[in-house]
Amino acid sequence: MKPLKSKLGVKRTVTENATAVLIGKKPIMNYVLACITFFHGGAKEVSIKARGRSISRAIDVAEVVRHRFLPDVKIKSIGIGTDQFLPQDQDDATQGATNVSTIEIKLMR
Amino acid sequence: MKPLKSKLGVKRTVTENATAVLIGKKPIMNYVLACITFFHGGAKEVSIKARGRSISRAIDVAEVVRHRFLPDVKIKSIGIGTDQFLPQDQDDATQGATNVSTIEIKLMR
Repeated sequence: MKPLKSKLGVKRTVTENATAVLIGKKPIMNYVLACITFFHGGAKEVSIKARGRSISRAIDVAEVVRHRFLPDVKIKSIGIGTDQFLPQDQDDATQGATNVSTIEIKLMR
Repeated sequence: MKPLKSKLGVKRTVTENATAVLIGKKPIMNYVLACITFFHGGAKEVSIKARGRSISRAIDVAEVVRHRFLPDVKIKSIGIGTDQFLPQDQDDATQGATNVSTIEIKLMR
């Protein structure tokens, strides 16, 4: 499961049945195009993942894909969570750990 | 259904069975406290709503409430959507309208 990089620099992951688009700081249309490309390639499900401040961009992407380009695409599920980062010089305690929120939006058609 | 303003300046809405916390630009602990206050006041369900860049803060609030303060609180549902703003000088066309993404996270205990 090697992350691919498209011409637009969008990171994508392809497994057997599921595909993922990881949202970063690029313009949202880059990510929208990545999702559309997956669906046009036959994917039944595309997962949009983001962390921290990119979360609102992930929702923008899902909304643009659904409303402007692929009206038959539905939201299958939305999950939220927390990723923890430990400081490099201490790897035992959660003290001093940084928490960042995550989101995963699963689209299906 | 009049929006109340708490001492911390957090906007809250109370209807018969449901309560809502509207996320703005204040520190997330203000919103966390508003949610906890609702649950301690007997609410079975609290809705966290946000728009645009405040969306990631809404998820932070939900995660802090769940993991740090009220472990018995579960996520009931997460919904996303789009709000449209029309420019003031034209109220007919969607042309020139600004779209902003929204999120609503429903917590229940």
